[in-house]
Amino acid sequence: MHPGFKIFAGSSHPNLAKEICNILGVQLGKISIKKFSCGEIYINFDETIRGKKVFLIGTTRPGKIHHDFFEIFLLADAARRSFAKSVHLILPHLSYSRQDKIHAAREPISAKLIAKLIETSGIDHLITLQLHSDQNQAFFDIPVDNLSPRKIFADYFRQKKIKDLVVISPDVGGAKNAKKFADELGADLAILHKSRPEHNKAEILEIIGNTKGKTPIIFDDMIDTGGSVCAAKKILTKNGSKEVFLCATHPILSGNAKEKLLAENFSEIIFSSSIPLEKNNFPAKFISIAPLFSRVIENILEKKSVSELYF
Amino acid sequence: MHPGFKIFAGSSHPNLAKEICNILGVQLGKISIKKFSCGEIYINFDETIRGKKVFLIGTTRPGKIHHDFFEIFLLADAARRSFAKSVHLILPHLSYSRQDKIHAAREPISAKLIAKLIETSGIDHLITLQLHSDQNQAFFDIPVDNLSPRKIFADYFRQKKIKDLVVISPDVGGAKNAKKFADELGADLAILHKSRPEHNKAEILEIIGNTKGKTPIIFDDMIDTGGSVCAAKKILTKNGSKEVFLCATHPILSGNAKEKLLAENFSEIIFSSSIPLEKNNFPAKFISIAPLFSRVIENILEKKSVSELYF
Amino acid sequence: MHPGFKIFAGSSHPNLAKEICNILGVQLGKISIKKFSCGEIYINFDETIRGKKVFLIGTTRPGKIHHDFFEIFLLADAARRSFAKSVHLILPHLSYSRQDKIHAAREPISAKLIAKLIETSGIDHLITLQLHSDQNQAFFDIPVDNLSPRKIFADYFRQKKIKDLVVISPDVGGAKNAKKFADELGADLAILHKSRPEHNKAEILEIIGNTKGKTPIIFDDMIDTGGSVCAAKKILTKNGSKEVFLCATHPILSGNAKEKLLAENFSEIIFSSSIPLEKNNFPAKFISIAPLFSRVIENILEKKSVSELYF
Amino acid sequence: MHPGFKIFAGSSHPNLAKEICNILGVQLGKISIKKFSCGEIYINFDETIRGKKVFLIGTTRPGKIHHDFFEIFLLADAARRSFAKSVHLILPHLSYSRQDKIHAAREPISAKLIAKLIETSGIDHLITLQLHSDQNQAFFDIPVDNLSPRKIFADYFRQKKIKDLVVISPDVGGAKNAKKFADELGADLAILHKSRPEHNKAEILEIIGNTKGKTPIIFDDMIDTGGSVCAAKKILTKNGSKEVFLCATHPILSGNAKEKLLAENFSEIIFSSSIPLEKNNFPAKFISIAPLFSRVIENILEKKSVSELYF
Amino acid sequence: MHPGFKIFAGSSHPNLAKEICNILGVQLGKISIKKFSCGEIYINFDETIRGKKVFLIGTTRPGKIHHDFFEIFLLADAARRSFAKSVHLILPHLSYSRQDKIHAAREPISAKLIAKLIETSGIDHLITLQLHSDQNQAFFDIPVDNLSPRKIFADYFRQKKIKDLVVISPDVGGAKNAKKFADELGADLAILHKSRPEHNKAEILEIIGNTKGKTPIIFDDMIDTGGSVCAAKKILTKNGSKEVFLCATHPILSGNAKEKLLAENFSEIIFSSSIPLEKNNFPAKFISIAPLFSRVIENILEKKSVSELYF
Amino acid sequence: MHPGFKIFAGSSHPNLAKEICNILGVQLGKISIKKFSCGEIYINFDETIRGKKVFLIGTTRPGKIHHDFFEIFLLADAARRSFAKSVHLILPHLSYSRQDKIHAAREPISAKLIAKLIETSGIDHLITLQLHSDQNQAFFDIPVDNLSPRKIFADYFRQKKIKDLVVISPDVGGAKNAKKFADELGADLAILHKSRPEHNKAEILEIIGNTKGKTPIIFDDMIDTGGSVCAAKKILTKNGSKEVFLCATHPILSGNAKEKLLAENFSEIIFSSSIPLEKNNFPAKFISIAPLFSRVIENILEKKSVSELYF
Repeated sequence: MHPGFKIFAGSSHPNLAKEICNILGVQLGKISIKKFSCGEIYINFDETIRGKKVFLIGTTRPGKIHHDFFEIFLLADAARRSFAKSVHLILPHLSYSRQDKIHAAREPISAKLIAKLIETSGIDHLITLQLHSDQNQAFFDIPVDNLSPRKIFADYFRQKKIKDLVVISPDVGGAKNAKKFADELGADLAILHKSRPEHNKAEILEIIGNTKGKTPIIFDDMIDTGGSVCAAKKILTKNGSKEVFLCATHPILSGNAKEKLLAENFSEIIFSSSIPLEKNNFPAKFISIAPLFSRVIENILEKKSVSELYF
Repeated sequence: MHPGFKIFAGSSHPNLAKEICNILGVQLGKISIKKFSCGEIYINFDETIRGKKVFLIGTTRPGKIHHDFFEIFLLADAARRSFAKSVHLILPHLSYSRQDKIHAAREPISAKLIAKLIETSGIDHLITLQLHSDQNQAFFDIPVDNLSPRKIFADYFRQKKIKDLVVISPDVGGAKNAKKFADELGADLAILHKSRPEHNKAEILEIIGNTKGKTPIIFDDMIDTGGSVCAAKKILTKNGSKEVFLCATHPILSGNAKEKLLAENFSEIIFSSSIPLEKNNFPAKFISIAPLFSRVIENILEKKSVSELYF
Repeated sequence: MHPGFKIFAGSSHPNLAKEICNILGVQLGKISIKKFSCGEIYINFDETIRGKKVFLIGTTRPGKIHHDFFEIFLLADAARRSFAKSVHLILPHLSYSRQDKIHAAREPISAKLIAKLIETSGIDHLITLQLHSDQNQAFFDIPVDNLSPRKIFADYFRQKKIKDLVVISPDVGGAKNAKKFADELGADLAILHKSRPEHNKAEILEIIGNTKGKTPIIFDDMIDTGGSVCAAKKILTKNGSKEVFLCATHPILSGNAKEKLLAENFSEIIFSSSIPLEKNNFPAKFISIAPLFSRVIENILEKKSVSELYF
Repeated sequence: MHPGFKIFAGSSHPNLAKEICNILGVQLGKISIKKFSCGEIYINFDETIRGKKVFLIGTTRPGKIHHDFFEIFLLADAARRSFAKSVHLILPHLSYSRQDKIHAAREPISAKLIAKLIETSGIDHLITLQLHSDQNQAFFDIPVDNLSPRKIFADYFRQKKIKDLVVISPDVGGAKNAKKFADELGADLAILHKSRPEHNKAEILEIIGNTKGKTPIIFDDMIDTGGSVCAAKKILTKNGSKEVFLCATHPILSGNAKEKLLAENFSEIIFSSSIPLEKNNFPAKFISIAPLFSRVIENILEKKSVSELYF
Repeated sequence: MHPGFKIFAGSSHPNLAKEICNILGVQLGKISIKKFSCGEIYINFDETIRGKKVFLIGTTRPGKIHHDFFEIFLLADAARRSFAKSVHLILPHLSYSRQDKIHAAREPISAKLIAKLIETSGIDHLITLQLHSDQNQAFFDIPVDNLSPRKIFADYFRQKKIKDLVVISPDVGGAKNAKKFADELGADLAILHKSRPEHNKAEILEIIGNTKGKTPIIFDDMIDTGGSVCAAKKILTKNGSKEVFLCATHPILSGNAKEKLLAENFSEIIFSSSIPLEKNNFPAKFISIAPLFSRVIENILEKKSVSELYF
Repeated sequence: MHPGFKIFAGSSHPNLAKEICNILGVQLGKISIKKFSCGEIYINFDETIRGKKVFLIGTTRPGKIHHDFFEIFLLADAARRSFAKSVHLILPHLSYSRQDKIHAAREPISAKLIAKLIETSGIDHLITLQLHSDQNQAFFDIPVDNLSPRKIFADYFRQKKIKDLVVISPDVGGAKNAKKFADELGADLAILHKSRPEHNKAEILEIIGNTKGKTPIIFDDMIDTGGSVCAAKKILTKNGSKEVFLCATHPILSGNAKEKLLAENFSEIIFSSSIPLEKNNFPAKFISIAPLFSRVIENILEKKSVSELYF
């Protein structure tokens, strides 16, 4: 194919890198990554990258976020100093993207800081998957391809041929994103909203929109502790839904999220493969994002449009 | 008071500057601003600013946005070259803040670009009022004080002693902001939401929440063409509301917004003074933001916290 | 021709872009430029530019300077974020280039500021026409091709076969530039100079050099309000010149310049097409700069020298 | 004392911060540091720092290096956005400082990258303790106070009144530093050197210099896995030394370093308190660096020379 | 006076530094400057500058330009790393300022490069004397005080009480500057201009303006090889002037300029002390610029306007 | 060969440039370098470099260091402004590289400053020979190829077929480098070390390692004043060595180094050609580095690994 590029995998998501290389029919680049006993990471490229487009593939994993970021920074620095033509970071899950504004006095804006650290390390281009807020893209001065898994998820549901689907946003913040997914599927939309029926009463979760007689898919950008989607499942069940699907891009699943999700008896849980999980460890459907990212790499190398894969 | 600062007014909002100087008991700095017949702006400071904290006061006015930005850029450049200690920009309305993400392929992210142009011109610190999205603050590398007019508006409504207020967000995007205002007022919240009762039918505007027997305040961050708030007014009226208030921070009022608003017969329309409007020109209540910004300047000079004025 | 580039026109000088594309035998790139009713500009590229050299064609028009600059900034930001290989700005007339030094205390140096804003927006290379001062080029850190229209104007006059031409600089500041034009034409040079015959008397305009029996061409880099060239015409006429030509690069023509020029009865007025003017609107000869700029684009794409077109 | 500063502690070395505050007689600033279950850190300052010199106190701990760096980055970003006058980082142990050059093809230069990340996060000034190489200081563009613990260690040994001390450098790389310590103590110097008595024979460790009848202090900048100092101890014992002291600045003690050190039966092991260790956990003497860093803060606030504390 | 500043002298103009310190009543700061036998410069400050405003005094001497620039760069780097509050460079003569534009293809713009190197080295503020072109100031992003020696020279001539002075610009390029000097003195102005009486004839030097019965002062910004002012002297003498004065800011006097000037028998030659010359070496009047620069330092420290000293 | 590059020589090492061009079979690019009588350098490229990889070849010569650096800065600026695709600096000897750390209070870190000045001038890539410390490479943000002359020197000695070579490091600082050379040659290693046999006695130079019956090669990175290698020669001779070779990379030879070296009667002195010396002027063997640098250029153009030439 294109002789002018090489793909290297960090230690955070080697399977994604392998799948992408298989699809593209190229060898994964040789690299050494060690961890000294003091905890320092040591990396070097085992083959020349002089004048090549270098694609670094990683992700940030819950519990290993800071390690994973530093590994990327070190890889980028080495690539730049070793005369790579350009350094492209494939990072489907970008941690800290929720800390994107000032909620309280004297906070950092961590997501912006992350963008600046990534740029400082020498990355020329970021390819990522569904940033938590669309504005996060603007935190970067380098160009960003912010891909959407919406079509991949839609294809999966379409082949299931379930009638009368309704997409559920577990809160108002996710309504816009859920609406796009509903439109993609030709499904209805409902939104869950916490409100107080009267002042000074406790907040209750309301369903806005009609779910009667329909099969709900709770749709979110990430499942972290799982609290809101489990609450959503409960109210949908209470409201008469028999089958409830859960579909989310990033399976962070921190704390006891796995136990909580299992306890809810979802019909099926569907995640993207943006974060590596032991499959036998958790009974979910992991839809691979490797074909999507492979296509992006191809289009970049052939200087074709990538933006059709965003929306 | 503090001898180490001077306040100067651009041509975009001289009344705000005068009010602030009156409150602080200081003279407005002397400045010359001319426009050559070819359209170039010429500015210079008529008094020394060497070693002083310089506060530049302006805004961006609909229809004069680009002129107003350039005037600020030129003032900042002159201040920096004239040895100002620091240059603080008071800009209650920041145009282009809605273009804060990629909606379609190959767009700019204009709000980020504006942030970079402001920084390039030599501004050290921005003091603004209710940016369209909270993430917009992170587009800046310089520190930003992003003030809220919520308490000012709440004070105004409290003295009216209207019972059973309900704050209306004209769309789901503004729900969070409306909720904070409702909480400040101790009022209920309702959200307007466009949805389709069935697939392939036209979208209709629904009221989420209870407005029966209550007095609605439609609350938004800006009124541009006025379309969504007029639609909101119509459905509230249709739903039985007799008195409907409209309260918004930035009165952009472009196109025939004024005519549309007048036609709706709001009980009262309340704006902040972030954009100068001929008062006799439009029958609205303009609540001055000068006390709020004066207090910010005072706190900055006395190195006290400003953040209590954000939330 | 070269598949690796695309040309796009801003709204400030579409005819120049069309002419250039015709000469080069390429299609003008598809682009959307809108203006919202509040005055904000919205742009996006309608075709992929990933990996392409992007040439943006615009100018800054009198009365629309700030609008035209912002349009360029937005186009550059979008091009950069959309993975253009490089962004080349063709901007024959660069406003603010006269504000290139400190004349009075506490001024900006606006021309330097403009250079920094252009760079901040993402432009990699500027191609322009006769900057007001040669030093202006150094305000940019990006490379600049500063072209000269001198040969184009000389060709025009040569085909007229007028005998005994004398090039007139309307003031000492323009003497150097006029001398180069005279040398190009093989013509004589005269300079107009304001001086006082005796101290405390009024300044009078003197002709330095011999214009007797010759046909004068008043030559300047730009005609703004037209004051100095009209004064020049008067003294030349008074001194016996029957035919007087006026030749200038940039037809700014602000204020009542058109009326003033018409009143002087020049034999002919010759401008470059650096600023679009309604031709039927004003009886001047507009010599197209499209061939010159087309040749620059060709040489850039073929990596040939452009500098022969500077001097 | 000086009202213009505040001291805050990260989570990596709270005791050092407390000690410094006690010595200076000031309150430690209030701060919140949380860790979300996904691993993201959240921090905010609980009191205003507007216009203050902010001193952040931390270190990088073995096994928690990347976490500790990110905490510092986030604190710096928050401080800068909250209008701190300047942000001073007290970081006695700076991880990655050994990766300060290219040993093999296509490595990063990690220590330089760390310097750039620290600067990007908003730190204005670094105060640290004995960087691994003196050149490391030059990796920073911000000013760096690189303190030496030599005098503190010398004071400790002087009060022991041991006769005939000899300072041992465990390898040639550390010879310079060991010589300065020997000079400070008025002691002799010996250097351990790996060499081959004949070509193609195994390397052996030689003692260069005279240790007979003297009490050796093995002196190094850091003890990581402890390999080289244990080898040094063995050869010194074999050579007749009965009492052997070990003195090192940074007690990294990774892997099974503690066990290895204990097995060697040093007369005493002396470390600085640059890295927090459970004292009852390991039988070493930890000499506090708090007085040294307190004096630096005082001198900075009083604009006195700090450099006497370097050498 | 102000305890917050210190003045240090480079090796290029120690007398200027001493004079300034005498006028201000302060001690010159202690500094070491050595030159190794290989030619490398070594400098260090011998007293603390932490938190101080540091004024570095030097110039660039003909034949030692590159040495003098490097000495300044090294001083600035040391000052910045030693925690100076700000670094102010007093450099009355700035070499390379004539290379301020592209005269021929593929040249550098050396004056702009110099500006960037000065900024890179850590200088925060430049105080200089009569830059060759006013645009040169804009090459700097740091603020620049560009002083004029015009009043100093005018005072000198006023006390001579010569009647009927006429200021002579030796070429059209210097006309503007000469006119300001003539206005300051209340004198007439004449300009020398090279032109051809007829095409294809040799250029001759013409006097524009009336010098009959008047005493000419040839006025220029610098005397380098002295060619143009000697030619000017000749034509003035030929035209009947008996006494001719020469007054110029920067006595570069390279090549055999001294011999050429002496051969012309000027009534008096007046220079500023911007470049140190052995006085007994050359019979000129050197007017000290120390009072001017002292006043600038005072005004800076007292945060008063400096710009009145520019024009 | 590759049409996309051009090689230009500065005035500091024209022979190296010519040799490289001969080896590569290309013409040296045409360039003009002048020195004005005031000492300013003027350069321009006499042929187009638009879109080309430009290799600039120079060095820094003792006594002409600052001149040589400025010539490079000016060449880089001109290359960048003339649209070179990339600017590669071949600079085998980089002055100031010994000033790479703070030895005493308030010094500059000159080697870091040099790195920043080189980058500011527009150099994209540095190719150099044996930097004084390996950390010096990290002072640059641009990529650096830091070549080693070790193999070249080893080849030279191998063809001499001397038995029982021993490589001598004249001090402990150079031990590492000498060891690598010894390993390359398959020779033994000895180190000279200054120490005191007893406290309060004078330092004496000791030989660590066995030199009996072997032929020593004193090996160093540079010979400046020659003091340490002459002392080394003396002690080796005293110790029985009959033939002593001296081999060093950079022949700085400042002060009376040549005389001192000649007086020592070395069997042979071997230098690289990193600094041009009049060969008939000094009886040393100068081994050309042109083949090494030619190979680097070839590998760069063919995007092959260069790093094998480092170690």
